[in-house]
Amino acid sequence: MESSTLALHTDKYQINMMYAHWINGSHERKAVFETYFRKLPFGNGYAVFAGLERIVEYVRGLRFTEADIAYLAKQEEDYAPAFLELLKQFKFRGTIHAMPEGSLVFPNEPLIRVEGTIFETQLVETALLNFMNYQTLIATKASRIKQVAWNDVLMEFGTRRAQEADAAIWGARAAYIAGFDATSNMLAGEKFGIPTKGTHAHSWVQIFGSEKEAFEVYAKALPDQVTLLVDTFDTLKSGVPHAIQTAKHLEAQGKRMGGIRLDSGDLAYLSIEARKMLDEAGLHYVKITASNDLDENTIFNLKAQGAKIDSWGVGTQLITASDQPSLGGVYKLVEREMNGKMEPTIKISGNPEKVTTPGKKDVFRIVDRQSGKAVADYMCFPNEEEPRRGGRLRLFNPLHPYLQKYVQNYDAVPMLVPIFVNGEQVYELPTLESIREYHKQQLSMFWPQYLRKLNPEIYRVNMSQTVWELKQKLIADHLKEEE
Amino acid sequence: MESSTLALHTDKYQINMMYAHWINGSHERKAVFETYFRKLPFGNGYAVFAGLERIVEYVRGLRFTEADIAYLAKQEEDYAPAFLELLKQFKFRGTIHAMPEGSLVFPNEPLIRVEGTIFETQLVETALLNFMNYQTLIATKASRIKQVAWNDVLMEFGTRRAQEADAAIWGARAAYIAGFDATSNMLAGEKFGIPTKGTHAHSWVQIFGSEKEAFEVYAKALPDQVTLLVDTFDTLKSGVPHAIQTAKHLEAQGKRMGGIRLDSGDLAYLSIEARKMLDEAGLHYVKITASNDLDENTIFNLKAQGAKIDSWGVGTQLITASDQPSLGGVYKLVEREMNGKMEPTIKISGNPEKVTTPGKKDVFRIVDRQSGKAVADYMCFPNEEEPRRGGRLRLFNPLHPYLQKYVQNYDAVPMLVPIFVNGEQVYELPTLESIREYHKQQLSMFWPQYLRKLNPEIYRVNMSQTVWELKQKLIADHLKEEE
Repeated sequence: MESSTLALHTDKYQINMMYAHWINGSHERKAVFETYFRKLPFGNGYAVFAGLERIVEYVRGLRFTEADIAYLAKQEEDYAPAFLELLKQFKFRGTIHAMPEGSLVFPNEPLIRVEGTIFETQLVETALLNFMNYQTLIATKASRIKQVAWNDVLMEFGTRRAQEADAAIWGARAAYIAGFDATSNMLAGEKFGIPTKGTHAHSWVQIFGSEKEAFEVYAKALPDQVTLLVDTFDTLKSGVPHAIQTAKHLEAQGKRMGGIRLDSGDLAYLSIEARKMLDEAGLHYVKITASNDLDENTIFNLKAQGAKIDSWGVGTQLITASDQPSLGGVYKLVEREMNGKMEPTIKISGNPEKVTTPGKKDVFRIVDRQSGKAVADYMCFPNEEEPRRGGRLRLFNPLHPYLQKYVQNYDAVPMLVPIFVNGEQVYELPTLESIREYHKQQLSMFWPQYLRKLNPEIYRVNMSQTVWELKQKLIADHLKEEE
Repeated sequence: MESSTLALHTDKYQINMMYAHWINGSHERKAVFETYFRKLPFGNGYAVFAGLERIVEYVRGLRFTEADIAYLAKQEEDYAPAFLELLKQFKFRGTIHAMPEGSLVFPNEPLIRVEGTIFETQLVETALLNFMNYQTLIATKASRIKQVAWNDVLMEFGTRRAQEADAAIWGARAAYIAGFDATSNMLAGEKFGIPTKGTHAHSWVQIFGSEKEAFEVYAKALPDQVTLLVDTFDTLKSGVPHAIQTAKHLEAQGKRMGGIRLDSGDLAYLSIEARKMLDEAGLHYVKITASNDLDENTIFNLKAQGAKIDSWGVGTQLITASDQPSLGGVYKLVEREMNGKMEPTIKISGNPEKVTTPGKKDVFRIVDRQSGKAVADYMCFPNEEEPRRGGRLRLFNPLHPYLQKYVQNYDAVPMLVPIFVNGEQVYELPTLESIREYHKQQLSMFWPQYLRKLNPEIYRVNMSQTVWELKQKLIADHLKEEE
């Protein structure tokens, strides 16, 4: 869906709450919401924040069309005409802070903070979560794959199995942010400037009288860096020998074949044998690409088995984040206007990790000046002096007080940057290349134990003493009310 | 993404193959492709075909824009200008048959059959699979949930966890086809006329001084059939008693509260207790809605535990098909033009189930006239007399010949209906309500053992003797070539 037609891409309860606040006269009271997730996906040690560009386009273009209003007028809730008129005039006038795309992010810290009237902050919840949850999920999955593929070429090949068109397009972009090199999806290429790659299908071979003819015709049409799919009939008996013949014909014309692609069978064995055959024919420069339901685990294992694969086409497992196809990002109220004054608020739950942390918070990444490495993320209120001033900082785990640590000589990098201020976009969207570059820098700021695929160390996300005390106080107030 | 801007929503290899065929002069040769999946998702006994409306819109609007052409002109493949000119004139002129949306469908039978020039049949592969795979997957998941929920109200609540906007919208539609009653997504409501439902969020309660006040204000604004979320603080001690007070106030004004919603905790216990409290207050008419990571298994178990839940809000697990987030639909060449004449073709694989069934095939559903129930699906060539004539039919499993059966006195219902003929749309898209109705009829044509959630019986998909013999002949020819 185009970002400009998404005003109704929201849950009905948002419209109903907007309406009820309007009826009650409370729709212009201020509220602060924070967006975060509680648990990292895939057992990973970090997530890669993505979705901001989509969110910026959505917020900027957020208008109800005539058709939207006409549709709302027919709802059984029987919204008053003056309310619909207000929607017709709607424009987002609030303030949004967010982490830059490509940031390494962690559980329970705000990734997006939205301030504004209840009216506008409630409306945007659904779409913000929808975009952030999916794109962050895919960027994180892609980053895991990048961790094991090292400098091999990674290609996103998942469109046909993606969960509809937007997932294919925005998923390709998320994968590129996290280190993929190309996508097969041409629309993602057009829209975002991502390099596109492709080989050919089995149907290409089937349509000709023989595999040999099919390869020759393909190489003639696309002589530069052509990659041939060698498993239509029999990889080692037919496909690779035919590809070698074609490569030799290209050589005779002063051209070089790009590669071959393996798409079935034992990729470790086949790639080792194919490499030998290519090398024996003097085709050291011909690369081997593999595809077929790959993910970080199969790639890791194939490499451990000595597979001779230079380039990986990753489809279904990446684009659907198959082993965990959703990120549970939430959007929670942390402050509300009460009698003309902002005050923190908490949501209690029988489930302790679902209790929210009250108050509008900033997030700083505490970076040790000596090593240049991140030590912890630190949440505090906007009026707290530390870590802004750079003084000695206590990092503590409130539940296990012996897990504490003092740091000094650090940089406190503010992670939430202003995106919209009173409805005006103040953030210039970075180019995709610079997001990708920023993501690489982010990775370099973390010790390897936080980045590894299996059983990573847990990176600290701490809160200030003041934040912690406020949370305890609001819980105590709640208990008192219950008595 | 809007269906009209999707020409480049395809894999690069499709464009490269189109180009290579054009260079080779083979791009206008005819080809027949069939789309099918090999394995049912979720261990289910059937799938529910969906995605056709999206596919029709896509095919109908398939044009390359000036921007698309300009983008292609910059590719490293260096496509010839005359090729780009041809794309500029492109319009789909082929013939497409497909099963109607809402059909119960089975593995290894063609769901969509595309005939046309290689040029056009190759281009559409990626988008067709993308739409069919996702929407069929979600319709199938929704149908499983409907099987256990019986006549309870089912609401699709998944937008915030969906894999981007299209998945939310088209997934809501797929769920509605398969028996869901409503969605929370207002855009899906606007676009498709699906009924929309919503309650309120925890933030509604948090924003007020007390839960009691929050409920009263909400009920005042939306007095008709309002549903109150009762778990913000404590479901049984606070939420339900406050909701009862509000219901009583509504009664005093001659209004009736719609329901309460439980969103955390032990839904079986809480719903039983809440039902008692409501009944004791004389509020027998107040319904109980539940949500919180529900799927067919949790709903089935809650019902077995005697949960008093009337209405289910199903989110993440449905909209992402969490336990199997992709359907492996494929698009395979079955016939090609060779020397001016169509001939069947096969793809061999070391993996026996990946060997294709050659030749352009029709699919008939064989329905026993006495019981009105489906006996088997039957694939045959367009020129075969049976089952069209209605004569005695042998259904056989070629690998296990003792598994055979003769049927007569049946109706042979053609399942592949014409959608486009030579580029002209000949199929009138049914309304969503009639698709939903058709799906119900489809279900009624199957014995319950094929429909059950756990260990369903396997429904027969058979091929004619002629189809089977052709497949064997092409395999034998292939083996001969290898010797």
